[in-house]
Amino acid sequence: MKKLIILAILVAPIFLKAQQCEKWKVFEISLKGDQTGNPFIDVNLSAQFSFGNEVKSISGFYDGNGIYKIRFSPDMEGNWEYITQSNQKKLDGKKGKFVCVSPKKDNHGPVVVQDTFYFAYSDGKPHYSFGTTCYAWVHQGDSMANLTLKTLANGYFNKIRFCVFPKDYDWNKNEPLLYPFEGKPLKKWDYTRFNPAYFRNIEKRIQQLDSLGIEADLIVFHPYDRWGFANMDAQTDERYIKYITSRFSAYKNVWWSMANEYDFMKDKKMSDWDKFISLFAANDPYNHLRGIHNGAVWYDHTNPLITHASIQSEDTYRAKDLRDKYKKPVVFDECRYEGNIPWSWGNLTPQEMVNKFWRGFLNGGFVGHGETYITENIAKWPNESNDNLWWSKGGILRGQSFERIKFLKTIIESSPGFLKPVTILESWMPYQGVCFKDEYYLLYYNLDQPRSQVDNLPQHSKYKIEVIDAWDMTIKPFAGEFSGKTLVALPQKPFTALRITKIKN
Amino acid sequence: MKKLIILAILVAPIFLKAQQCEKWKVFEISLKGDQTGNPFIDVNLSAQFSFGNEVKSISGFYDGNGIYKIRFSPDMEGNWEYITQSNQKKLDGKKGKFVCVSPKKDNHGPVVVQDTFYFAYSDGKPHYSFGTTCYAWVHQGDSMANLTLKTLANGYFNKIRFCVFPKDYDWNKNEPLLYPFEGKPLKKWDYTRFNPAYFRNIEKRIQQLDSLGIEADLIVFHPYDRWGFANMDAQTDERYIKYITSRFSAYKNVWWSMANEYDFMKDKKMSDWDKFISLFAANDPYNHLRGIHNGAVWYDHTNPLITHASIQSEDTYRAKDLRDKYKKPVVFDECRYEGNIPWSWGNLTPQEMVNKFWRGFLNGGFVGHGETYITENIAKWPNESNDNLWWSKGGILRGQSFERIKFLKTIIESSPGFLKPVTILESWMPYQGVCFKDEYYLLYYNLDQPRSQVDNLPQHSKYKIEVIDAWDMTIKPFAGEFSGKTLVALPQKPFTALRITKIKN
Repeated sequence: MKKLIILAILVAPIFLKAQQCEKWKVFEISLKGDQTGNPFIDVNLSAQFSFGNEVKSISGFYDGNGIYKIRFSPDMEGNWEYITQSNQKKLDGKKGKFVCVSPKKDNHGPVVVQDTFYFAYSDGKPHYSFGTTCYAWVHQGDSMANLTLKTLANGYFNKIRFCVFPKDYDWNKNEPLLYPFEGKPLKKWDYTRFNPAYFRNIEKRIQQLDSLGIEADLIVFHPYDRWGFANMDAQTDERYIKYITSRFSAYKNVWWSMANEYDFMKDKKMSDWDKFISLFAANDPYNHLRGIHNGAVWYDHTNPLITHASIQSEDTYRAKDLRDKYKKPVVFDECRYEGNIPWSWGNLTPQEMVNKFWRGFLNGGFVGHGETYITENIAKWPNESNDNLWWSKGGILRGQSFERIKFLKTIIESSPGFLKPVTILESWMPYQGVCFKDEYYLLYYNLDQPRSQVDNLPQHSKYKIEVIDAWDMTIKPFAGEFSGKTLVALPQKPFTALRITKIKN
Repeated sequence: MKKLIILAILVAPIFLKAQQCEKWKVFEISLKGDQTGNPFIDVNLSAQFSFGNEVKSISGFYDGNGIYKIRFSPDMEGNWEYITQSNQKKLDGKKGKFVCVSPKKDNHGPVVVQDTFYFAYSDGKPHYSFGTTCYAWVHQGDSMANLTLKTLANGYFNKIRFCVFPKDYDWNKNEPLLYPFEGKPLKKWDYTRFNPAYFRNIEKRIQQLDSLGIEADLIVFHPYDRWGFANMDAQTDERYIKYITSRFSAYKNVWWSMANEYDFMKDKKMSDWDKFISLFAANDPYNHLRGIHNGAVWYDHTNPLITHASIQSEDTYRAKDLRDKYKKPVVFDECRYEGNIPWSWGNLTPQEMVNKFWRGFLNGGFVGHGETYITENIAKWPNESNDNLWWSKGGILRGQSFERIKFLKTIIESSPGFLKPVTILESWMPYQGVCFKDEYYLLYYNLDQPRSQVDNLPQHSKYKIEVIDAWDMTIKPFAGEFSGKTLVALPQKPFTALRITKIKN
């Protein structure tokens, strides 16, 4: 009897731990193995996860100190079993099982492409991508990261772009706290040995973002580098991709961005990018979203392994044409930033930043935010300053666009369905607009100042019309019901939009 | 002796009348002839004007009531003689002479193309084209025309675009006071008989503009028509071109614009436009500037008979590229208008209109203004309103851009020479700018809000820097002298420009 009790005590925690995993969350196997040789290179580890006849093979990774891990994110509720495979005996043939349980209220699963031009969470809830960019926020330490997370918790954005590697650029000359490889800065790295602490830090941030409902758009490579990470050899690049896909893929909010300004990485050829894209498609068992972001030269986003067009361009109004061209969701991840720096890409007025959001969304696309305000009292040379700019380090927002972006987000998220560029109103409507069937129209008149507008509403139904001030963040209804050709009086100022909603047939 | 005195009295007035003509002004021969048959068709009339061995053949025209005229504008000072030729005996073989005298202070002669990308008056004075558009101002009667002239006398603009034919369009549904042909509206015209009073009215306006130093950019054809003038047969078109070149060419401030929105005239083929351009080149003895203005489809301005690219586009910043493409002066005659009408081309804020001017000029181009403010208390359907919009009828200006355009005009006109897009500063200067040698730079930061800017001034010289607020119309100097790589503190607001002037080597 005594023996049995002891056994129960020993077994119970293990059994309970492995017992449940929420759908789309992470089930992690942690195994103690040998650390002789180079575990990053010498050890192969994977696990077969079975659900009835369905089997998924998941790669593991070495997490340092003799610990090997396999992370799995189940997408079906019910009983799962697994068995490990490894060339290291201690890691091979380990078996286990768990029950995948229903997702909680705020867990909607990974974002996927839906209806060609849109995003939705795996449970079908639409995801309207309102991104921001803080390239190096995960490399600034806890204090800054917590400040960033506190800012993000206000719900302005549901996606953030950031770099896996540390960043070297104007206003970002500080060393990161950790480095991705064993070795010493600047360039003495053992590229065969990752620094697990570096990647654990990123995982922590990914999970913190997930708890805020924010997608982590991970930039795999970037050119802003003084450590050599932009110029690793092909073998190291591939090992790095394998390592981060094994570590990060199970987190449901991960997106893969092959690069920021891929074309500014002069050591990489177009064939390298094609290969990287293929590697992510092959290595990521969950098929997370994959994009590649341009500098001056656009990637050919018709590549079927690219899930969405991740564009740098200030012409967000081109979303409609780019939808037609790529037949994919169009995301303007960079359309210049609100700020006051000398470089033209970072000194938009808040007004123009808001305008670019409206024009992008009202042409059927998605737009990303960034903020680049210098705060030092005396203007310094950009490469001599260590100022905290949101776009680079995160922290707090200082501008005036983010609140208006949230206002637009609220409007878009309350629309009755995926919004497509209008066709019915076009002959009368020289501006952009989107609609959901004939039930709902959202029209926007840019920074222009029309005093009236002629709208050609469907004849067969009655509509209510509300006038939106995209800057003042007001929505005011017009008295009456409208139908057919309608002359609408407008406030004669920039940022005017109309919301037209069917009230009866 | 008595006989001689009488002869002197008789001859003297004639001799005095014909005696002098200011260089580039109009010398007019008026002859009484027969009006049997159709003088517009049946009578040929021209005159040979001789200056030493130089001979110019000038066509005459019928001005009604048996009066035939030949107008000539001499471009060389000294003694000119002429003799007429005609198939009507009364008009044939008439001789005379006059002395061409020096131009007065404000007479700089016709505008011509200079140094590939620029305009200058014939005496060498630069002409920086600051145009405006009042399509139908000459068709509104004296009261409105005088109001227009009074407005124009304030010197905001030095060119105005307007239509030779009357205009039918939103906010311009009133009948003109006169019609170009004999007959009755709407469409019962004797296309073989011009109405001289109609053309005399236009000449009067051309001369009034000239006295204000304003170029008359005559739009020969346009699609906004209910009388049939947009759909005349080829023979009538040619006779019309011959008639207006004979009547108008001697006025030094005439420019020929083949059409407004030529591509919206569906009855005309591209070969028609090519023919019209050739006809103007052949019939106008003074080779006045010739352009053709697009709607949606741009004309190929590389045609050597086209003197400058007359563009409709809101992207005035493209001037630099279009200079390279066409190797001609680039004039954005329409880049949308300041106003509040429903149509997107006519509801720019004054801010954006001013911005388009700066961007166009600071990329080496020229820009035209227009204003479309509805003034009626109650918004009417555009086609039911007879409101007075400057862009159509002239009158008074109601906006806020015209004063700022004059401010820019003053700056540009005080520059030391023709300004070309900067090259020296480019690597540091992501914005547009123009320069004169290394002596003078004008840089503009759009509606952005940089707090500082890095300029790479030539090392070998000292410069003074002034900061311009293009909206507030202020110019303030920075203390000090500058050289080489310079960090300039800026006011962190839209409409910032810099003027950088060499003070010593």
